[in-house]
Formats: sequence, C-alpha cells, structure tokens
Amino acid sequence: MKVKDTTALLTKLRCCMKTGSKAGHAVNAIVVPSSDAHQSEYLAPCDLRRAFISGFTGSAGTAVVTVDKAALWTDGRYFLQAETELDSNWMLMKMGMKDTPTIEEWLCKVLPESSYVGVNPLLYSSSSWSKMENALEKEGHKLVETSDDLVDKVWENKPAAPSSSLIILKDHLTGKTSSEKIEDLRNQMKEKESKWLVVTALDDIAWLFNLRASDIEYNPVFFAYTVIGLNSVHLFIDQARLTPEVQAHLPSVEVHKYDSIISFLEQNCASEKTWLNSGSSHAIVSSIYKKYRQTTSNSPVSMMKCVKNQTEIEGMVSANNRDAVALCRYFHWMENEVPKGTVTECSAAAKSLEFRSQENDFVSLSFGTISSSGPSGAIIHYSPNIDDDKPVKKDELYLCDSGAQYMDGTTDTTRTLHFGEPTDHEKECFTRVLKGHISLASVVFPAGTKGYWLDTLARMHLWKAGLDYLHGTGHGVGCFLNVHEGPVGTYIGNSDRVVVVASDVELKAGMVITDEPGFYEDGKFGIRIENALLCKKAETKHNFRGKQFFQFESIALVPIQQKLIDKSLLIEDEIAWLNVYHQRCRDVIGPALREGGHAATYDWLIRETEPI
Amino acid sequence: MKVKDTTALLTKLRCCMKTGSKAGHAVNAIVVPSSDAHQSEYLAPCDLRRAFISGFTGSAGTAVVTVDKAALWTDGRYFLQAETELDSNWMLMKMGMKDTPTIEEWLCKVLPESSYVGVNPLLYSSSSWSKMENALEKEGHKLVETSDDLVDKVWENKPAAPSSSLIILKDHLTGKTSSEKIEDLRNQMKEKESKWLVVTALDDIAWLFNLRASDIEYNPVFFAYTVIGLNSVHLFIDQARLTPEVQAHLPSVEVHKYDSIISFLEQNCASEKTWLNSGSSHAIVSSIYKKYRQTTSNSPVSMMKCVKNQTEIEGMVSANNRDAVALCRYFHWMENEVPKGTVTECSAAAKSLEFRSQENDFVSLSFGTISSSGPSGAIIHYSPNIDDDKPVKKDELYLCDSGAQYMDGTTDTTRTLHFGEPTDHEKECFTRVLKGHISLASVVFPAGTKGYWLDTLARMHLWKAGLDYLHGTGHGVGCFLNVHEGPVGTYIGNSDRVVVVASDVELKAGMVITDEPGFYEDGKFGIRIENALLCKKAETKHNFRGKQFFQFESIALVPIQQKLIDKSLLIEDEIAWLNVYHQRCRDVIGPALREGGHAATYDWLIRETEPI
Repeated sequence: MKVKDTTALLTKLRCCMKTGSKAGHAVNAIVVPSSDAHQSEYLAPCDLRRAFISGFTGSAGTAVVTVDKAALWTDGRYFLQAETELDSNWMLMKMGMKDTPTIEEWLCKVLPESSYVGVNPLLYSSSSWSKMENALEKEGHKLVETSDDLVDKVWENKPAAPSSSLIILKDHLTGKTSSEKIEDLRNQMKEKESKWLVVTALDDIAWLFNLRASDIEYNPVFFAYTVIGLNSVHLFIDQARLTPEVQAHLPSVEVHKYDSIISFLEQNCASEKTWLNSGSSHAIVSSIYKKYRQTTSNSPVSMMKCVKNQTEIEGMVSANNRDAVALCRYFHWMENEVPKGTVTECSAAAKSLEFRSQENDFVSLSFGTISSSGPSGAIIHYSPNIDDDKPVKKDELYLCDSGAQYMDGTTDTTRTLHFGEPTDHEKECFTRVLKGHISLASVVFPAGTKGYWLDTLARMHLWKAGLDYLHGTGHGVGCFLNVHEGPVGTYIGNSDRVVVVASDVELKAGMVITDEPGFYEDGKFGIRIENALLCKKAETKHNFRGKQFFQFESIALVPIQQKLIDKSLLIEDEIAWLNVYHQRCRDVIGPALREGGHAATYDWLIRETEPI
Repeated sequence: MKVKDTTALLTKLRCCMKTGSKAGHAVNAIVVPSSDAHQSEYLAPCDLRRAFISGFTGSAGTAVVTVDKAALWTDGRYFLQAETELDSNWMLMKMGMKDTPTIEEWLCKVLPESSYVGVNPLLYSSSSWSKMENALEKEGHKLVETSDDLVDKVWENKPAAPSSSLIILKDHLTGKTSSEKIEDLRNQMKEKESKWLVVTALDDIAWLFNLRASDIEYNPVFFAYTVIGLNSVHLFIDQARLTPEVQAHLPSVEVHKYDSIISFLEQNCASEKTWLNSGSSHAIVSSIYKKYRQTTSNSPVSMMKCVKNQTEIEGMVSANNRDAVALCRYFHWMENEVPKGTVTECSAAAKSLEFRSQENDFVSLSFGTISSSGPSGAIIHYSPNIDDDKPVKKDELYLCDSGAQYMDGTTDTTRTLHFGEPTDHEKECFTRVLKGHISLASVVFPAGTKGYWLDTLARMHLWKAGLDYLHGTGHGVGCFLNVHEGPVGTYIGNSDRVVVVASDVELKAGMVITDEPGFYEDGKFGIRIENALLCKKAETKHNFRGKQFFQFESIALVPIQQKLIDKSLLIEDEIAWLNVYHQRCRDVIGPALREGGHAATYDWLIRETEPI
C-alpha cells in the first residue's frame, strides 16, 4: 500500500476552515465521516471524502482535523492498514482500545475554550449530530454546520456524482405498484396526522418507485430524495436521468433538482407536521421546525420494505435457487481444481462470478466476494487482493461468503469447505457452528419476538466449549436491493462486524434474514455457515392465547460439507434437520442442474447430500 | 370483599388540593402511586396511601384524583378485584387494554388548559417524574410537588411508621464489614470525582451497614437514608431505634433524624458533585443542583450487593439446604395427606411454614406462599385466601412457590406436583417447562453476557409446541434480604409479573438469580419449576480470546417430580442433567434428613431421585 502525502491538502483545508462555518466564521476543527448524504453503507467514489483527505482507504473511519492536528479513528479490522496508509501528519486512534478517547473526548482535550467544530450537516445523521452536539456543549464547544463541504473545496478532480441508467421493474417482479405503496404510506401519514413524509435512504426510494440503477457498487440504487405529501409526490433527482420511459412510469410525480431538497423542505414543509427518520441527515431534519417534526427511528418505507410480499418472496426463492446452481457448480469445480494447486483466492472468486453470470437475470454481485483460504478466513471482512493473491490450499479450510443481485432477488450465502483432510479440531469447531446455525434455523417463536432475542441460539453450542464469534448473527436482505437491509436483524451485544445495527423490530412473516454464525482462529482459519432464512407462519401443536407463532425456511439450498461434521456432536433433531435440508437441495437444485446440462455437478450434489 | 365509601374522603382531599402545591397554590389533579419514599416493592401499612384513598387493596395500581373525577389504573391481575372494591366515585382504567389511556393521556384529556398536577415528590422516582413532567409539559400542563402528602392530610388514624428492632449481622454472616464496604464505595466515588453518594433503597442500606430489621413484611429492612461523604457517613433514621449495641456497631456514623435528609442534602451536598440513582425519589434527586448530579440507573451499592462474596455464597447455599429439608418434609407430607382429602391451600401453606420454622436460623417467609391447586395455579400471583380456602385435590396439579428468610440467606423455590395420575397433556407441558429450566441452568456463557440474552433458552421448548408464559424467567435474590433483588435478572419482553425490571447488567460470578419458566392454562392448572442458581466461573475446553466463561450451579436441591416427566421428550444431555441434579439432592439433603431424624422423608427422597 502506498502512503499519500497529505501535507499540502491539509494546509488548503485549514485555510478553508478559517471561514468554514455556514455563518462564515472560523471553525477550530472539522469532522469528516465515512458517509454520504443518504447515510448509505457503501459509498460512491465521489463520497470517499475521508479516504481522500487522510489517505486511509478502509471502509470505516472518521477523520478529524484541527488547526494543528489531524487524527483518524478506525476499528480493529483496519489498524494495520491505517498504520500503513497514513502519513506522518496523522495520528491513528484505535477504537476499542482501552486508552483511546472518543472523538468528542479528544476534541474537548485539544481544542481551546469555546471552540467551533464543523461538520457537513448532510453527512451526519440527525441522531449522531445530537449526540455530538450534546457532548461538545457540555464542555462549552459548539457543533456548527460547515458551508458546503470543506473537503470538496480542496478536492481537485473529484469524481462526478454517479448517474447510471434507471431500470424500471415491472409489476410481476415487485408485486405492488408504486402508487399502491404510496397509498399505504398516506394511510399511515393520516393516522399520524402527518402532512409530509421525507424519504432519504436510497434503497427506500428505489423500492418505493420500483426503480433500480447502479449508482453504488453492489447496491442497485440511485441518488435521490423523496417527499410525499397528502396529494403530491416529489422526487429530487438529476433530471437528465429521466428517460421518457421512466417519466411514463412516474405519471404523477413532480420532479425537482436533486440539490433543491433542503430549500423545498424549508419552503413547503417546515411549519407542517412532517414525518422524518432520525437516521436522515441533520440537514434534512433541521430544515423542519422542531415542533413540527415527527421523528421515528425507522422510516415507514423501510418497515414496509423489510416484509416481502408474495411476489418478492417468490423472486427471492427463485434467485436463491439459481444462485445455488452457480454455487454448486463452483464448489464442484473447486473440489476438482484446488488439489491441482492452481487455484488462487482471486481466481476462485472470478470463477464463482463466471458461474453466477450464466444464470438468468443476473445483474451483479451483491458485495465483494470473500474468497479466503486458511488464515485469510479468520479476517472477517477479508477481500482477496489481486496484488497479493494467495493460493487456495488443499489442506486448509476455504471460506466463501458471496452473493449476487438478480432482477428478482438478492442472495448472500457462505460455505466453508475443506478439499483435503480436516483436523478433529476443525471438525469440532465446524460442527458447533453448524449446531448454532441449525438452532436458529429451526426455532419456533411467538409474534412479538425481536431478532436479538434469538441471537444466543446461534452461539450457545460454541459457548459450551469456550468459543464465540465477534460479529452479529444475521441481517435483513433486500429484494434486488441492498444485501444488508435494515431494520431487522438478529444482533446482540458488541460486534466488530458493523453492517446493519440491531434494532427493536419484531420479526414478521415475509422478512428475510441471514443466519450466519461462525468461528475464527486468528492466523489459522475461519468458519462460517450462512443461509438466508424466510420468516413464515408456523403451525404449532398448541396455540397459547391465540398467539401467532413463526418459523424460518432456509431459502439458500447449497450442500453443507459433510466431511467437516463430527456426527457424534449432533443430536437426533439436528441430524434430522440436516437430512431434510439436504433432501430439499436435491429436490429443488437437482432438477435445475440436470436441466442446465450440469450432469457431473448433479452427481456431486447427490454425493454431497447423502443422508447421515 | 367489601366496598369502601370514599365520598367524604375525596371531598376532603379535593379541599386540600385547593392549596395543595408546595408553593401554596391549587392543583387541578393529584396522582397517588403505590410506592414509598424508597421505591420499595413491598409497602409498610403506613404507605398504603393508594389503597386508603381508593379502597382498592391490590398490590399494583395508581389513583388519580381531579376536582371532579377519580380514576384508578391497574393491570390485568387485578381487574376483577378492583371492580369489586372500588365505589362509584371511581373509574377503573384497565392497563394493557387497547383503548385505555395512560395516566398522562387521560390527564391531558380531562384537565383544563395550563393545569397543575401534584405528586408527592418522595413517592415518584426521579426517572418517572421526568417522564410524566415531559408528557404533561408537551400539552401545556405542569407537574408540581405537593406540600407534604395530601392523602396523609386526610388519613385519620394512619398507621405509625414501623420501627422494628435492628439486628446486627456479625462478620461470619456478612463476609465484609460495613467499613470495608464504605471504603470500596469511596474508591468508586474518587474515580468518579464524587464528593457525596446518596443511598436510598432500603435493602442497599441494610446490606451496607450489616443490619437487618422487619419494617416491611418479608423484607428484613428498616426505614433510613444514607449519605456517604469522602470523610463522613450519615445515617438518617428514627434515632430511638439505636440501641447501645447498634451504636457500638456504627462507631463512625453520624446519625440524623429520618426526616432531615432533604434539608441535609440541600445544605451540604447541593453544590458538590453528588452520585445519585435515577430510581431515587424526585425529592432526593432534585435537592442537588442539576449540574452537580451524577446520576446512574443502578446504585453502586446494588451493583456490589448483587455479587455475593464467599461468606454470603456459603450462607445462601446453607440456607437453601435447610430450606430443602423443610420442602422435602413438606412435599412428602403432602403426598401422604392430600389423598385423604383434608388438605387445603391454606393448611398446606401453614404446614410448609411449620416445617421451615423448625430449621436453624429461620427468620420469616421471604414472600407470601403461593399454595395453589388446579385452577388457582394458573393465577400467577395467587395467594390462598383463608376466607375462600380451597381443597388441594389429588387429581389436580399443585403448584407451590415459596421461600424463607434465614439469618444466612434467602430462598425462593417452586415445585409443581401431582398426587394422582397426571394427564399426557399435563406431562407434555411440565416436560417442556423442565427442558427450558434445564437449558438455562446448564448454559455456559462468556463474560459480558446480560441476563436477558439467556431468557429465550427457557422458552424455546415451549415455543416449539406453540406455548409460552407471560412472566420473566428470573430475578436476583438477596442474601437475608429482598427475595426480588435488582439489578440483575433474565427478563425479556413483556411480563405481567412485575417484580424486578430487566436491566442491562452483565452476569458475574457470585450473582444468584432464579430460573423459573412456567406454563399456565387459565381455569385449569399452572406449572412452574424454580431453582435459585449461583453464577460461577466455568472451565471450558477452549478459551476464545482469553475470555472468561461462566455457568450456573443450582443451589436449591429439591426433587423434581418424575411422574410428571415425559422422558421421550428429553434428549440425552437433559436426562444426564436431571440425574446429576437428583444425585446432588441425595448427596446433600439426604444426610441432613437422616441427621434430623426424618427417616421416612429420607426414603421418600431416595425414591423421588431415582435415576431415569
């Protein structure tokens, strides 16, 4: 990795800071987060401001620049990378270490009394803004909005904002027209007595209008804002993108310039009851007078979107089935090729992309393929690197976490395989991960259960042996949308796998979440077994107080490698679950393999799904 | 139940309301909660203000009186009782029903604009006060302190405040002197830079000074406040209670009048950093200027108290062993007597008290014995009633939840028994409750785990069959202190068994919590299996990232009735757990029964603990 010399850049930035506040006065410090104006998880190149100013290219981190200091906060996944990439202008602040101050604590220590701290109000969620504002105020400092973005002012040759083609999804893929969705939202608005609803998350907007694009890698979204009134719908977007077809698809939508959202809100909504999301930017939320804000922590669009309708469910199932065909072909290919010693982490990832791209309605990957051999697998967010490619070894565990976007659904599946002879220890760890996967996949639970209540089920068998994993157990999955989709999930406790934050949302029939316990031994191996699960109504023997009970159905149907299982650690119910699951792989994926002309892979599937 | 005519009382109370605020002006409404100045769970007779003013004698409820209306809020356990006891002056507000407004909502509906709502600031916790204050303020009303207590002003012949004898606990029972405990607290105060620490919970104060009393039924506490300075300790108590022995036990403690606490705080602590607990009363918390308050949601005393030291652990174990002797004798006696048809719920409870009182160092019960046959068992907070006593029937399930205070520890154990032939359905339900009990009792978990993470383990086997229970799974237990001791517990979700609220506290070695899943079929039967569990360090095969792992040890050793178990529903590990548990009952309680001369009960124990 190369080190970027940031000296000149910081000088320019500090110069801008002298008149950097929106009010035109100096700011003593600016905070540059890793985010865009829509609080997206993945960023477009034009939004990589923190990477640009600091030189640190990891996905998570926050830069803070004062008149004489520059510091970068990141978490344990990135300490090594940050140390390598940052030049001597920067101090590295290792989050999670005992003596590392928070950004607020550090600012209060280094700033002169009554300082101004500037942040681009588009890049901080309203809730994060309030938190920092309170912490600074306690010590006599003020959090202020910067005028435009100060990093942008010093960023020469900044990449343009993306403007990819909009794709119209027909009703047979969405199950619900955009008008119907808007009508549902208006009914909720009427109940709340809201006059306006502001939608800022890009996947919410894509879902709402049944449109997709490719503005952000892996996420089929487009940059836009939406404001819904009781009798009007407003879309804020680069107007050049609206082809006649798209215009025809949005007959009753008033289109505005993307950048005009704030002035629109100020002029039309500021003094009327307006429904906002605390995850929206401070700029958006503060454009409405406080007493008119109706703020919820989840947008009503995301609450609707996470419960898939029947068409979306069928799409997700179908996409997972095609994905399973590609994965079976891929793992079968690996079994043949790895022993030859010619497969690398990158070439393997490329092969899996090749197989996927041959499936109907394939659009793109849904995230960067984690193709990792041995020690690489222990790095939870590993990406194989073409500049430092590693062989996939026959005598190591191979972990592959991958997924794709199809026109009808999104996939995310992890399998851990061994192409030689696993050790007893590897088998014990794999089997305990599998037991956890099965415990969550087979639980029955009453209406009202929140995802995090179930997290322990996926861990308890590891705990029994003194093992654990430091990431969440599952996240929501979009339907031809973001692979990490809020607000549902099964997180509990601390996680260094920061994707979708655990939330207080009840599990409902139609939700799709992942079940992905793991175990990682630093420097040695990683194990993870991940399927997407569809939540559905359960038929139970009894029915306590008329409560509805739910259960999951695994919709990813890819064999779980049996040579890694220590059967003596499984109980009868777990063996039965595995055999039923593998029979479903045979029944559903088998015919698809034969019809696709993949006879050898079909034989592989049958062998890999023998009852145990 | 008789109905109290509250007409005259309400007239007097409304008269007091005309000049009822602390500032001397009128209040438009007053709120009378079920609480005392220490936010105790159980109340002394002099604190039963809500029962006095409304006539409703249930343990949970809040009365609200306006100039022309009177309303009482209570939960589902008490709807019937409240309907019977309230006279026509009162409206019953059924909490948990869809259309029932909250107290704040109702007040905002019925009060004229800009009203004053009065509350005795001693009876509302600081956190509840803030919540109500905000809700009222939003609608233009003000929450104000009343002058003294308005109910007390109209309460003729009010019972006197209790002033029972103080019992000094010697070091061999406490394991730590009061001075050592205070020194530990001062170290924590220094770390926080606190000048003062205010302790208001009665069990915290009893534990801190190694004193007990009997001011409140079942709870061996005494009315007092404590303020700890860096160089002084202040005890606010009825000074007449301080015998020379107690004075000698508290050599460096400055004693003040009980009622002088607020003026002491105002004069000495108001402008110095003072550590408070948000569960303390609004009167206490607001006596310190806002900027000097250091408020935590759990007092440091309760955080220390819930982790038992070695002496306390030994006391809890020993008390549980003696209690098990009494319970074995009792259940053996029931087995012989119930078939004769002469045992009633009340006579059974009396018999269990008789056996317990024969054990060394018995002090009192730790709560009212729940002795319930058949349908009575389905009422979770059932108390047998001497005016409506019911037979214990041979062909019904009998549920007994009971416990006692001993000088060295507190117990709380529930067993469900059948003295005839249980049905298959009863056996299935019992076995699923048992599976849940075992899952929680045998879990291994890492440091950092909070009680509520484990709650699902106790429910999942019931859920699988569409069953559940509407109460928490466990609570902390004091050591010769309150049987419901915060802040630890394993609650999750909604509970209609309101005891200790779930809190965000990590489980630690030395904590004692209960494990008490159940199942209840209205009008038919109740099942609950409850043991106290001691949390201790676990030896695990592996040790992920050097983390400490914990497990539980059951310290209540009373046979679990085998005729209620459907063995076909148990897996091997559960059968092994049960056999090991019953062997421990034999090994530990067996000798005590023989030494106590209870040979027939010994034989009963051996029979009841046969390996299955």
